[in-house]
Amino acid sequence: MLRAIMPGSFDPPTNGHLNLIERATRLFSRLYVVVAHNSQKSYTFSAEERLEMMADLTAPWPNVEVHLWERMIVEFAQQVDAPVMIRGVRALSDFSYEFELSMLNKGLDSAIETIFMPTDARYFVLRSSAIKELVRLGGDVSTMVPSLVERALRNKIRPAAEVDKG
Amino acid sequence: MLRAIMPGSFDPPTNGHLNLIERATRLFSRLYVVVAHNSQKSYTFSAEERLEMMADLTAPWPNVEVHLWERMIVEFAQQVDAPVMIRGVRALSDFSYEFELSMLNKGLDSAIETIFMPTDARYFVLRSSAIKELVRLGGDVSTMVPSLVERALRNKIRPAAEVDKG
Amino acid sequence: MLRAIMPGSFDPPTNGHLNLIERATRLFSRLYVVVAHNSQKSYTFSAEERLEMMADLTAPWPNVEVHLWERMIVEFAQQVDAPVMIRGVRALSDFSYEFELSMLNKGLDSAIETIFMPTDARYFVLRSSAIKELVRLGGDVSTMVPSLVERALRNKIRPAAEVDKG
Amino acid sequence: MLRAIMPGSFDPPTNGHLNLIERATRLFSRLYVVVAHNSQKSYTFSAEERLEMMADLTAPWPNVEVHLWERMIVEFAQQVDAPVMIRGVRALSDFSYEFELSMLNKGLDSAIETIFMPTDARYFVLRSSAIKELVRLGGDVSTMVPSLVERALRNKIRPAAEVDKG
Amino acid sequence: MLRAIMPGSFDPPTNGHLNLIERATRLFSRLYVVVAHNSQKSYTFSAEERLEMMADLTAPWPNVEVHLWERMIVEFAQQVDAPVMIRGVRALSDFSYEFELSMLNKGLDSAIETIFMPTDARYFVLRSSAIKELVRLGGDVSTMVPSLVERALRNKIRPAAEVDKG
Amino acid sequence: MLRAIMPGSFDPPTNGHLNLIERATRLFSRLYVVVAHNSQKSYTFSAEERLEMMADLTAPWPNVEVHLWERMIVEFAQQVDAPVMIRGVRALSDFSYEFELSMLNKGLDSAIETIFMPTDARYFVLRSSAIKELVRLGGDVSTMVPSLVERALRNKIRPAAEVDKG
Repeated sequence: MLRAIMPGSFDPPTNGHLNLIERATRLFSRLYVVVAHNSQKSYTFSAEERLEMMADLTAPWPNVEVHLWERMIVEFAQQVDAPVMIRGVRALSDFSYEFELSMLNKGLDSAIETIFMPTDARYFVLRSSAIKELVRLGGDVSTMVPSLVERALRNKIRPAAEVDKG
Repeated sequence: MLRAIMPGSFDPPTNGHLNLIERATRLFSRLYVVVAHNSQKSYTFSAEERLEMMADLTAPWPNVEVHLWERMIVEFAQQVDAPVMIRGVRALSDFSYEFELSMLNKGLDSAIETIFMPTDARYFVLRSSAIKELVRLGGDVSTMVPSLVERALRNKIRPAAEVDKG
Repeated sequence: MLRAIMPGSFDPPTNGHLNLIERATRLFSRLYVVVAHNSQKSYTFSAEERLEMMADLTAPWPNVEVHLWERMIVEFAQQVDAPVMIRGVRALSDFSYEFELSMLNKGLDSAIETIFMPTDARYFVLRSSAIKELVRLGGDVSTMVPSLVERALRNKIRPAAEVDKG
Repeated sequence: MLRAIMPGSFDPPTNGHLNLIERATRLFSRLYVVVAHNSQKSYTFSAEERLEMMADLTAPWPNVEVHLWERMIVEFAQQVDAPVMIRGVRALSDFSYEFELSMLNKGLDSAIETIFMPTDARYFVLRSSAIKELVRLGGDVSTMVPSLVERALRNKIRPAAEVDKG
Repeated sequence: MLRAIMPGSFDPPTNGHLNLIERATRLFSRLYVVVAHNSQKSYTFSAEERLEMMADLTAPWPNVEVHLWERMIVEFAQQVDAPVMIRGVRALSDFSYEFELSMLNKGLDSAIETIFMPTDARYFVLRSSAIKELVRLGGDVSTMVPSLVERALRNKIRPAAEVDKG
Repeated sequence: MLRAIMPGSFDPPTNGHLNLIERATRLFSRLYVVVAHNSQKSYTFSAEERLEMMADLTAPWPNVEVHLWERMIVEFAQQVDAPVMIRGVRALSDFSYEFELSMLNKGLDSAIETIFMPTDARYFVLRSSAIKELVRLGGDVSTMVPSLVERALRNKIRPAAEVDKG
């Protein structure tokens, strides 16, 4: 079977990410989950925290390796000799953005194929940003993220105070 | 008739918002206009200013109440026992975002129905952000916002100086 | 509460339609389900068959009436004095088409408001045309349509023969 | 490596299809190109003609097999034990339709994964229907289809006569 | 100033078409309105009827010429030496289709530039097909088409009979 | 021929911008390239740097003038008496945003027509932001921007250090 990489910022990992990883482990001989870090951007969790959470969560799958990476994703694919890059696409997401990114990467290394895997309908609304907003507002996210991520979120994000001045 | 809520940041209220509110007052027995405030975000007008402007502008409709709210919108709907949440959708807006938000809220309380009301064609381009940019550039926004909002905008936003170095 | 109409060709009714109807019955005092018939178009089921199936399926809800209609939908709304027209919108459907239709109807009678209700995620793929294709190919549609519709489909559509000439 | 299927009507095969097949042959141990035939639809080329053209064009790749199939595509995947179904997606195509189809197939057999491969930018405009229209109008399609397909098109489709009554 | 062509099937011409033509006459020295006819397709009005209606309606503009054309549109542009092809685009229309068509035409003659002109908001819903459906249903289309077109439509299309079997 | 303006932030100019300018110089008698500057926004290159780069790059075309402008674009068009505003649109870009902007400008001065010119397929992925990200990551952008822009980018943006802690 093939080697594949799955890049993302995973800030934090969600049940949607893990569903995609689980499905990909059945198709590829080795799956490199790449925690992409851009020093220009701000994250809720540090690069090391994201790496560690993802490593813990993917421990059950023997053919998954988790790496932290700060350079171009195609360079990672070249380094581990993986000809496939997997991107999850949601029915409601901006497909144009993903298509454009795939063309950009194709221009950087035409030997690496981007493939899109459709997100499972149960996870259509699991954007990491929405989950963090829910935690801030005191909402229940237990069906959206693994429990270790839920605990980490509750430690990072303090809920907003209650206000009604109507 | 039904009770309904209409949430938004209303920074500031526009003629598009008021058109939607006016149409909704004819369908629902009581309409709660909810000025949503997120302490993590920055606004042009403070929560109190937005509340006050909206209260003044909706004074003509006896079945409208305006509230300020900093928590999850579904909690407001539960508190006032309103089973309907109204969202205006513009032909040119990101419908996917609204759909996703409605699914997220459905997950939080399945008894609350989001309904989308199409924006009137006259108000297709009235994004609050574009109106503020126009005021900054000295443009005429008198057909886009009520006059009390126009005055408030002119007080808040100082026009850019004139420059042509071509 | 309000009176509302829900038009469609319902060729045949699906579980998605019934989910929408069930949710609407809780919001409106009376819901008119309008089986729209256009003599220029061809259908799998006759107007009378569609009317009868829909009447049977909506019998559990006392505030639902089913009607057959061949003229402009706004005329039906006027006749029963219903100021709201409900359209289900799927995340994956052509929202532009629905928006355009709502503007057209607004032009015909500005007093009638179109509201869009988002389809439940479980029913995202239930286009009537896809269901009929599945029946033709011998697929299982028991989770997609009520059993009386499934039986009617099996009577109408003869499965394709098995062929493999590869 | 993995076995995969690539279904389509291929009426006729284009350079875009062949580019996709060529890229897929490098990722999968065996690629089943499935010429889907629906007896309810009309085609420019018969099922046998499409099968034969595709078999000729894919002869250079030893790991490609071409089959004709009239039933549900998931049944073919089950029969040849291929867990992956490949769909080419064009930047300009209706991604929603493809997403919906993938969800429908997932519902029929959750073990079969649909993956989307982005079409190469050179082939963005190669819809089979546009190519046939060009042939009818006497246009040059030599960069769009293999020469055997071009000859077959010229035999099938008679060009329109020249008219200018302006 | 430039010469430009504006192709369409104009089955029939609408107020939206005429608004676009009027705006284009101010930008271009000569505007060729091209009534495209495809002998494979069926139309409500014959090629000659569409040509005649368009000629009558554009008579007020001295720099407009109307032509009937059955071949590739780029050939017409070449024949009259017009480097610009105008396409009206509606906010609610399928922009992808127009983009694809422009790429196809660019491939046929790279010297001819397609430019898109946005449709005026008043005419967003004026698809010719919707107008014909309205006429069939006895609706008022007097704000959508010129009066000569309205008369022609009433002669062509017989209204549906009134039916209510609910 | 006509006078036209082409506004943009050009931070920095790309090969996609220059391709569009080159094509527009053949259609219009005079083309005003307008470097738009908004003092509220942050740019990689200063207004003067962007103006100077654009002036250098368009020097080969005698009918191009480059200007810096901080006010409403319609005011520039009025000042130079240009009735046409050109916007490049990419197949993958947010067409809705461009349509909305054109409607907003139409509201400010109905005599100025926005026309959209489709971006050449070779330049579909050339967003200025993606190019800057590539430079930061040490990628090759020599096919995406003119060499003077590439040098300027390498001076402005320091590449990220190499990190792999997987």
